[in-house]
Parts: sequence; C-alpha cells; structure tokens
Amino acid sequence: MNPARSFEDLVRWRRDVRRFRSDPVAPEVLENLLGLADLSPSVGNSQPWRIVEVRDQHRRAEIQASFKRANDQAADGYHGQKAELYGSLKLAGFDKAPVHLAIYCEQDGEQGARLGTRTMPEMLSYSCVSFVVTLWYAAQVQGLGLGWVSILQPVEVNSILAVPPNWTLIGYLLIGWPEEEHEVPELERAGWQERTPASARRFVR
Amino acid sequence: MNPARSFEDLVRWRRDVRRFRSDPVAPEVLENLLGLADLSPSVGNSQPWRIVEVRDQHRRAEIQASFKRANDQAADGYHGQKAELYGSLKLAGFDKAPVHLAIYCEQDGEQGARLGTRTMPEMLSYSCVSFVVTLWYAAQVQGLGLGWVSILQPVEVNSILAVPPNWTLIGYLLIGWPEEEHEVPELERAGWQERTPASARRFVR
Repeated sequence: MNPARSFEDLVRWRRDVRRFRSDPVAPEVLENLLGLADLSPSVGNSQPWRIVEVRDQHRRAEIQASFKRANDQAADGYHGQKAELYGSLKLAGFDKAPVHLAIYCEQDGEQGARLGTRTMPEMLSYSCVSFVVTLWYAAQVQGLGLGWVSILQPVEVNSILAVPPNWTLIGYLLIGWPEEEHEVPELERAGWQERTPASARRFVR
Repeated sequence: MNPARSFEDLVRWRRDVRRFRSDPVAPEVLENLLGLADLSPSVGNSQPWRIVEVRDQHRRAEIQASFKRANDQAADGYHGQKAELYGSLKLAGFDKAPVHLAIYCEQDGEQGARLGTRTMPEMLSYSCVSFVVTLWYAAQVQGLGLGWVSILQPVEVNSILAVPPNWTLIGYLLIGWPEEEHEVPELERAGWQERTPASARRFVR
C-alpha cells in the first residue's frame, strides 16, 4: 500500500465511535499509541498535553453521570422532531469502552518558554488537540475506535479527577474496538447532519 | 509499506517548516490536500473551518509586517542568552513559501445544530485544529512542508483579510517544498527546547 493511499484511507474511515465491543485493549497497544501521539506538533515544542487514564470505576461512573446531566440539558434545547432525533442518538460509549482518557492542557508550563503563545495563548490548547488528532489516526491504524466526548461540564470532570487548577479539559476520550466500521459518519447516517460541499468553506483574498 | 509503519513515519518526520524552496505548488495538489482535510473530525459534523487562501501580494506583505511587529515584541520578553537565541531563530517562512492559508473558525454557524458545543463551545475551534493537523500530515505524505505561524495579532490579520466578525483566527499556514527534511524539530536543533520524557505527562486516577 503506498503511503498516500494509506493515509487517505485513514482519514476517510476515521469515525467518532460510540459503539464499542467490551474486549480489553492490551496495555502495550495503548502505550504505543500514546508514545506516538507524544510526537505531535506543539507550539514552541511545549508538549502541554497531560494524559489522565481513568481506571477507577467509581470515578468512571461519576463522569458518566456528569455526561447524562449535560446531555439531558442539551436535549432540552431542541424541540419537535429535532428533540426526538437528539434523544435517539447514541452520543458516547461509556457503557463498553475499555479505555477512558481525559486529555488536559497545562496552561502555564515552563517547557517551550512561551515561544509562539504571547499573542495567541490558545496555541497551548490547540497543541493538545493535535495530540488527540494524532492519537485518533494512530488508533485507526490499529483498528481501534475513539470517541471524543464533549457533552460534559469541565468543572465537574476536573473535580472528579482532582486535577491541578491550571489544567484545562480538552476532551474525554473513550477508546476500544468498534462494533462496526463505516465510511459515513454516524450523525449523517442518523439524519442529524450530513457533510456539506467544501467549496462553501473556501475563500480567496 | 504497511499502514502502521507508514503513519508512524509521517508522525516522526512531520516538522514545522520555516525554510522553503520557492518552487510553486501545483493547484491540483493543494486542491487534493484541502479536499482530504475537509474530511477531518468536527463536533456535530459542523465543519466550522473557513479557509482563506491569501494570494494578494500586498496583503501578504501586510501580514508579514504584522508578524515582524509581534515577533519583535516577543523578543523583548527574553533576556540575556535566551534573547540572543530567540533573535537567531527563524520562526516563519514568509520569504519563500508559495502558499499562504489563513484558517478561521466560524463560531456560530448553523451546521451541526450545536450538538456537542453547549458545555464546551471551544469544540468548534478544536474542530478547526483537527483540520490543520490532518492537512499537515496530508502535506507530509506529498513531501510538502507546513509551518504554523501564531506570532501574529489576530485582530490585525482579521482586518488585513477583511473577514466577518464571527470568524476566529486559528492559524496562518505557510506551505511549500521544504529545503531539507529532519527527524529532529528545528527548535531542538537550535537549542531552544528539546522534547522531554512522555512519562512526566501521564497520570492515573
């Protein structure tokens, strides 16, 4: 397989996965993924990502409850058919995903000596997103699925995980073996939102 | 080449490039890269990225001047040896990069119907970062280099490019054929900041 074709396949087949098999992920597989993602781009080579592997069942349950509260509130924001459709969506795979990772950004670390962050301090958080995206493709290479949960109140998650106050939640990731693979996003298959033509997003100046 | 090896190579060899050859990038190559990156993950399938290709030489010069001002100010924040080192770094490839892209996030678009953004509205910007990261790897597959410039005052860039007020600047990207390829980041080779052990970034709860 040539590298271009291979990366294109990764991008085409990467999905936000919410339906997992409960089979475990071998520790060395997770280790390799996290090691590779640690080479992601970061502003000033600051590597500001902080990876919290959530293993404690009690903490997992608290985070799932936090998701449920945020999701119920979000559901209240829709009406009629859209509300019905929202209620029918499966938006997170807490029930089965064997690996839970909370990804944080340390906002005022020493590493990188603030290069590239003075006018755009958000570059630190963006560097942590680059970690997540690299991890996502690396997981896909191994046939592993990743679901990025953002329907959470960060302040609740921070408290449940007892993280330092200078850490910002970037996302809560559920990782495991997917029940099935699809080229079309689940939100499109469910009739929530399809992709739209890219030309509408292109401008010239 | 197997896909795992091939993606690992991409991640290992992807650099933030500041030294370009001035050779042009064929329009169809750029088109393919942008089309592939358009399949990047986005919250609620919102695809909030807006891509401004900056072709106008006058606007390019204004942005380069904006970079120079921000960079001079940043330099004033360092002292002694670190200031000297900062002054010696090449932090952007405005001089030769043939392709200039300003990546924006539309913060209140209709697409996606706000799914996944109520408690974490920053997910829209993060989706645009996922676009940039996918574009970065896609460029690397083709042997193209990308440099992400964040030493800019967004308000100045927005004005130079006359973008709508609900767009947020994510980054200014310079793309072209790199002068050379390196496995070690330029900031590490220059003695600014080396990578540190990943274990310091891992936690269990």
